[in-house]
Amino acid sequence: MSAPKKVVLAYSGGLDTSIILKWLQTEYGCEVVTFTADLGQGEELEPARKKAELLGIAPENIYIEDVREEFVRDFVFPMFRANAVYEGLYLLGTSIARPLISKRLVEIAAETGADAVAHGATGKGNDQVRFELAAYALNPDIKVIAPWREWDLSSRTKLLEFAEQNQIPIAKDKRGEAPFSVDANLLHTSSEGKVLEDPADEAPDYVYQRTVNPEDAPNEPEFVEVGFERGDAVSINGEAMSPATILTKLNELGGKHGCGRLDLVEGRFVGMKSRGVYETPGGTLLLEAHRGIESITLDRGAAHLKDELMPKYAELIYNGFWFSPEREMLQALIDKSQEHVTGTVRLKLYKGLARTVARWSDHSLYSEAHVTFEEDAGAYDQKDAAGFIQLNALRLKLLAARDKRLKK
Amino acid sequence: MSAPKKVVLAYSGGLDTSIILKWLQTEYGCEVVTFTADLGQGEELEPARKKAELLGIAPENIYIEDVREEFVRDFVFPMFRANAVYEGLYLLGTSIARPLISKRLVEIAAETGADAVAHGATGKGNDQVRFELAAYALNPDIKVIAPWREWDLSSRTKLLEFAEQNQIPIAKDKRGEAPFSVDANLLHTSSEGKVLEDPADEAPDYVYQRTVNPEDAPNEPEFVEVGFERGDAVSINGEAMSPATILTKLNELGGKHGCGRLDLVEGRFVGMKSRGVYETPGGTLLLEAHRGIESITLDRGAAHLKDELMPKYAELIYNGFWFSPEREMLQALIDKSQEHVTGTVRLKLYKGLARTVARWSDHSLYSEAHVTFEEDAGAYDQKDAAGFIQLNALRLKLLAARDKRLKK
Amino acid sequence: MSAPKKVVLAYSGGLDTSIILKWLQTEYGCEVVTFTADLGQGEELEPARKKAELLGIAPENIYIEDVREEFVRDFVFPMFRANAVYEGLYLLGTSIARPLISKRLVEIAAETGADAVAHGATGKGNDQVRFELAAYALNPDIKVIAPWREWDLSSRTKLLEFAEQNQIPIAKDKRGEAPFSVDANLLHTSSEGKVLEDPADEAPDYVYQRTVNPEDAPNEPEFVEVGFERGDAVSINGEAMSPATILTKLNELGGKHGCGRLDLVEGRFVGMKSRGVYETPGGTLLLEAHRGIESITLDRGAAHLKDELMPKYAELIYNGFWFSPEREMLQALIDKSQEHVTGTVRLKLYKGLARTVARWSDHSLYSEAHVTFEEDAGAYDQKDAAGFIQLNALRLKLLAARDKRLKK
Amino acid sequence: MSAPKKVVLAYSGGLDTSIILKWLQTEYGCEVVTFTADLGQGEELEPARKKAELLGIAPENIYIEDVREEFVRDFVFPMFRANAVYEGLYLLGTSIARPLISKRLVEIAAETGADAVAHGATGKGNDQVRFELAAYALNPDIKVIAPWREWDLSSRTKLLEFAEQNQIPIAKDKRGEAPFSVDANLLHTSSEGKVLEDPADEAPDYVYQRTVNPEDAPNEPEFVEVGFERGDAVSINGEAMSPATILTKLNELGGKHGCGRLDLVEGRFVGMKSRGVYETPGGTLLLEAHRGIESITLDRGAAHLKDELMPKYAELIYNGFWFSPEREMLQALIDKSQEHVTGTVRLKLYKGLARTVARWSDHSLYSEAHVTFEEDAGAYDQKDAAGFIQLNALRLKLLAARDKRLKK
Repeated sequence: MSAPKKVVLAYSGGLDTSIILKWLQTEYGCEVVTFTADLGQGEELEPARKKAELLGIAPENIYIEDVREEFVRDFVFPMFRANAVYEGLYLLGTSIARPLISKRLVEIAAETGADAVAHGATGKGNDQVRFELAAYALNPDIKVIAPWREWDLSSRTKLLEFAEQNQIPIAKDKRGEAPFSVDANLLHTSSEGKVLEDPADEAPDYVYQRTVNPEDAPNEPEFVEVGFERGDAVSINGEAMSPATILTKLNELGGKHGCGRLDLVEGRFVGMKSRGVYETPGGTLLLEAHRGIESITLDRGAAHLKDELMPKYAELIYNGFWFSPEREMLQALIDKSQEHVTGTVRLKLYKGLARTVARWSDHSLYSEAHVTFEEDAGAYDQKDAAGFIQLNALRLKLLAARDKRLKK
Repeated sequence: MSAPKKVVLAYSGGLDTSIILKWLQTEYGCEVVTFTADLGQGEELEPARKKAELLGIAPENIYIEDVREEFVRDFVFPMFRANAVYEGLYLLGTSIARPLISKRLVEIAAETGADAVAHGATGKGNDQVRFELAAYALNPDIKVIAPWREWDLSSRTKLLEFAEQNQIPIAKDKRGEAPFSVDANLLHTSSEGKVLEDPADEAPDYVYQRTVNPEDAPNEPEFVEVGFERGDAVSINGEAMSPATILTKLNELGGKHGCGRLDLVEGRFVGMKSRGVYETPGGTLLLEAHRGIESITLDRGAAHLKDELMPKYAELIYNGFWFSPEREMLQALIDKSQEHVTGTVRLKLYKGLARTVARWSDHSLYSEAHVTFEEDAGAYDQKDAAGFIQLNALRLKLLAARDKRLKK
Repeated sequence: MSAPKKVVLAYSGGLDTSIILKWLQTEYGCEVVTFTADLGQGEELEPARKKAELLGIAPENIYIEDVREEFVRDFVFPMFRANAVYEGLYLLGTSIARPLISKRLVEIAAETGADAVAHGATGKGNDQVRFELAAYALNPDIKVIAPWREWDLSSRTKLLEFAEQNQIPIAKDKRGEAPFSVDANLLHTSSEGKVLEDPADEAPDYVYQRTVNPEDAPNEPEFVEVGFERGDAVSINGEAMSPATILTKLNELGGKHGCGRLDLVEGRFVGMKSRGVYETPGGTLLLEAHRGIESITLDRGAAHLKDELMPKYAELIYNGFWFSPEREMLQALIDKSQEHVTGTVRLKLYKGLARTVARWSDHSLYSEAHVTFEEDAGAYDQKDAAGFIQLNALRLKLLAARDKRLKK
Repeated sequence: MSAPKKVVLAYSGGLDTSIILKWLQTEYGCEVVTFTADLGQGEELEPARKKAELLGIAPENIYIEDVREEFVRDFVFPMFRANAVYEGLYLLGTSIARPLISKRLVEIAAETGADAVAHGATGKGNDQVRFELAAYALNPDIKVIAPWREWDLSSRTKLLEFAEQNQIPIAKDKRGEAPFSVDANLLHTSSEGKVLEDPADEAPDYVYQRTVNPEDAPNEPEFVEVGFERGDAVSINGEAMSPATILTKLNELGGKHGCGRLDLVEGRFVGMKSRGVYETPGGTLLLEAHRGIESITLDRGAAHLKDELMPKYAELIYNGFWFSPEREMLQALIDKSQEHVTGTVRLKLYKGLARTVARWSDHSLYSEAHVTFEEDAGAYDQKDAAGFIQLNALRLKLLAARDKRLKK
């Protein structure tokens, strides 16, 4: 790879990406464009602008954007249409944010004439893969710089030295090492590393940042009604809201009741297992509610096909293949299934639990006339079941007859 | 089908199967053998013996058996090795008991020279299918009688008339109709019908019989350690126990803390949707713990393959195909994966929540040396990730290059 | 089911459906509308009109239509986009025609105010299922009459008697029984039954009707170029043609060279195995060519996902679920994949073989720069493969390390 | 990676691996052990011994082995139980041989105290991945040396110079470059590169080495009967044979009749597409015959499950994951299905075609009593089909009723 001339950096304004910014300038002598996105991580963005300016970035090279609506509408919601969970439990909160960041990096590169993008993910994790696969899928000629895989700033001490030598301001609380590493966006907060590295030790309570401990949650349950149209949440308690507003509101509700905590050991795409603590309060409610509305509006054949394909779909997102033909093919299949996933679900929230307790829809396939224990009004002829069973049994009978025959 | 001469009836001792017993005698004039199984449903069996005798069944034709260990060891545990859930949520508590009952019916038929078996499931549900497919798979020549599909006792009034005419004792509380229908065994209790028929109405609290309301559960969390060997639970809090004892103990723990309640609308194999309320306290703990131990002992490739096949496996059990080549093939695959699923999981139980908070094993694949945020001791070379990403990206780059080329 | 008042009958004009026509009139006293479709079965349709008139059908109740273009465009081509084969070999020639016939029956019922449709398929085969599932999926209130499951005309003798009693003309060659049963349309001809019932006996040569014996095919190979756009064949040897014309032309070519014969034992949806002899000359060429053009234009991820889902897709069509949400979902996925399946394939036809020998496309993903044995121009860095392998190997190493550790 | 001390080299005796041998000695100064296997590639092995000696390898460090029986019994046959084909067409002839070679390399390393193995595959292909994943899966601490990814002998000229400088004899016909690259073993011969690099050009006839051109094949068809036991071929024309003997015999038959030629563009695991010409004469016959015997002995449920999983199984083998938990899990599933795959198939071979024309077995599930067009003897009640269809249709009717309702 020839040296980059101009790089768009995914810049948080924090110490690490500030060091990267400086390192790109000194190592490659290249111009740097910063991109700072509000994905709902709950941090002010303007300090990032000031810090970038301080590090010598020209105002026109500082991009700061609120992408929360795009994030929820075009990434989170399509994923939730699939009921996607990775390894049975993980709601993919980090995975789903990376492609959007890469998309903007590549787009800004095109706008600014940059030939490279850079990110602050390490060489051990999944995020590097997600950033880079997305970038290459959107621009095959882009260069991607991953400083953590390249430089020799491999210890905290060296990093701080580099910062000091380069006049990068270091917040007081960053002098010591954080007891674990955090990633956050509107969908979730993840914590990993350091104090969490031994999966035999329970995660200390201070790790959780976004949800109350269920033991401290209200002693009274709360009910919430989520309205859906074509598979996407569109209202809460009857009030229509934008995608990001809905997720924000669900986060408040879920966080207040201690919902969505997960302590997981997962298999990384790069080959090792890692332990993460995830908080996905709103997403946990959304998944439960989406399953609830599908339960009455989605045909069994459609639902089972979705269920069979979900693990593969979730794996693709986890592994960084959001921008791939196979993810898009699966999305086409999933979206096709959601045409009638419209209606309302009532959830009960209490001490970490979020359970569907009622659901209704004009699009419902549930037929009381068919299922009732009351005497039939003719909707269903029980005698049909005899033929149904006989023909389903036929191949099993032929198998059993073979066994009998061969044993003689 | 020619008339049966001798029938083995799945007999609970309750009013409905007593009516069936009598109806078989009068309708077909055939000899009846009763089979009453203790599957952990929590009812005394001896009254069934007395009632059968009262209805004229000879002592040698009354079979009463405790099959709880067989049920858990040969049916429940193999199923939990797969983390089987139907339609994302249902733990298959009713589905998994039916094949065992059919197996004993067919075996007793062989022992007693009976040419038919009979069950008390209706013509609308899944259970008829499960009973009959299992029976035919085990004996292709057996006759299966499903009185509910045949007779004209189609209302409560007619049933009670038949009972009175035939001197079948009717317990006082059976005169009125039950407000919902119940099935229970060691794994779960299910309730459906009547007051539960409108899925837009929350299930009344009196429906739940086996778990306390989470709101009434203890205010202090409780921890429990489940030990596994080759995928099966073998101990609780360090104490080795038999399969049925383990499930019984987990039921106590889960029930006390309000775990395992589920209110679900599901797609029946016979084509309509139905709403059920399930309580699976021990099973809910077992599933969570099994996932927890797999998370450190099961390879990612193995785990993902299991995840992809689980929905099909669950569907087969739900639909009644336990005794089918494809279920057995999937079981062979699943069992192969469990060779190292050995170790211990600590669960935290609180107000309906059951969460894995720690897990450890001599068979663990988790490697702190690989995942650590500390400086590497050489276990992992971050530079390898660059090549890994490049080759994973190659086909995406070729796709993007095509798009670029065609747009020119 | 209440008695039908007006029935639309799938009418071939042959003896069997003429008997059905009369039986409907006499059994139910209902008005009959006939629908005769040209699906490319190679028979004149006008004789069917005359015969219907002879049997008392009013001219406005006689529907005769050439649906060949619709058949190929909306049914055959979408299916071939999936490379669908049932049980590894069968090209689904009969299965794919049934939904179209049912669709027209239901539409004509709506136009003519009929409340029922009728077909001539027996109670043992798959076709009854295909006809009826399609009809019910399009109109849930339609009645479907399947005379072969209802009447007592269960032998050839009885059928002929009924025909004679009802003045139905019997062609001389229909007095005796045909040595096997035939179904034909533009995609294929199938033969089964009678002389073919023992799968241990080779099918006699006179069974084949549409393809020459490869031994009698030309001694010179012939080349043919098939052009594709977005997954569908659009030209032959450079000449643009309509869908039905293309299939007709491919049939001529394939038939001349003895391509597309298949002798198969297959598993029917209704539970038993049956043996069929199929001739699909054009379809065989089309499948080979479609695979050929996909091989250079379809990404590996997309192709493998299609391959994994194909058996389920084929099974759905075979079982009669063309008009089902899950088939439509899979179709959405498949169609999404075909956006760039555009280009040309050269086939070599010789003595029953049809092999792709060359393929080219502006949409090709094949990159000589990447694959070449020549010295690299920098498109691909072989050193990347080391990292790629290391990270793919990591989980396997961790597994092997565990085995080593536990053996100590 | 620290420098290896002793290396086991997969050594063919040809020029390229001789250069590698010398390069290992000079580059790393390490001791070399050679392993030359007879996989049925059709070359004498003793010249390899002489050449190794000439290059200074001690006799005790030269391993020459006939592994043909192990190859067919433990690798080829298990794979054919799955009917494995990659991307619809490729019989995986190269892929399946690599794990066996790696297994022996690792075993010989253990025997001889070597700390490394080496192979002659390039950095662009799949074989490097297959060799290395297998090696690491069997010994996590082994070093693997892939000289083609390391050295600078990147052109033919440099290679020949190195050979001359190191007194490596160069056969006259190796001075010029081969017009394409070849790999061969008992299962297949593959050719790729150079003259084959443009997939729009038909492969020249001289590329084919193992099969006659169908146009030159005998003008008379030949029949062959293949006997199977539990999924594996055990006899030809009634004569029992060892696995390798059977494959050898099938190769003769297939080669004589021009069967098993394939010209394919495939997607490599490392990301690019490549074009290969494959000849798999015996394997083509074996696949056809195996499908034939399965068609009468394998239950539909079992067969369809196998079909759905086959693409994934084939992909695993293609990508080099033979020694992985997921391949072993799938193998357990597949092997379970083969318990009754016993019987005989008659193939007709003619001008490149190999078609099943008859099959029979004591284990057959085919029941003429059920399928017959003759009047029933009571094995099957056609009326059962009505109930079967009604219940299969129920969910489709509910869908159609919803559509109707919503349109009002």
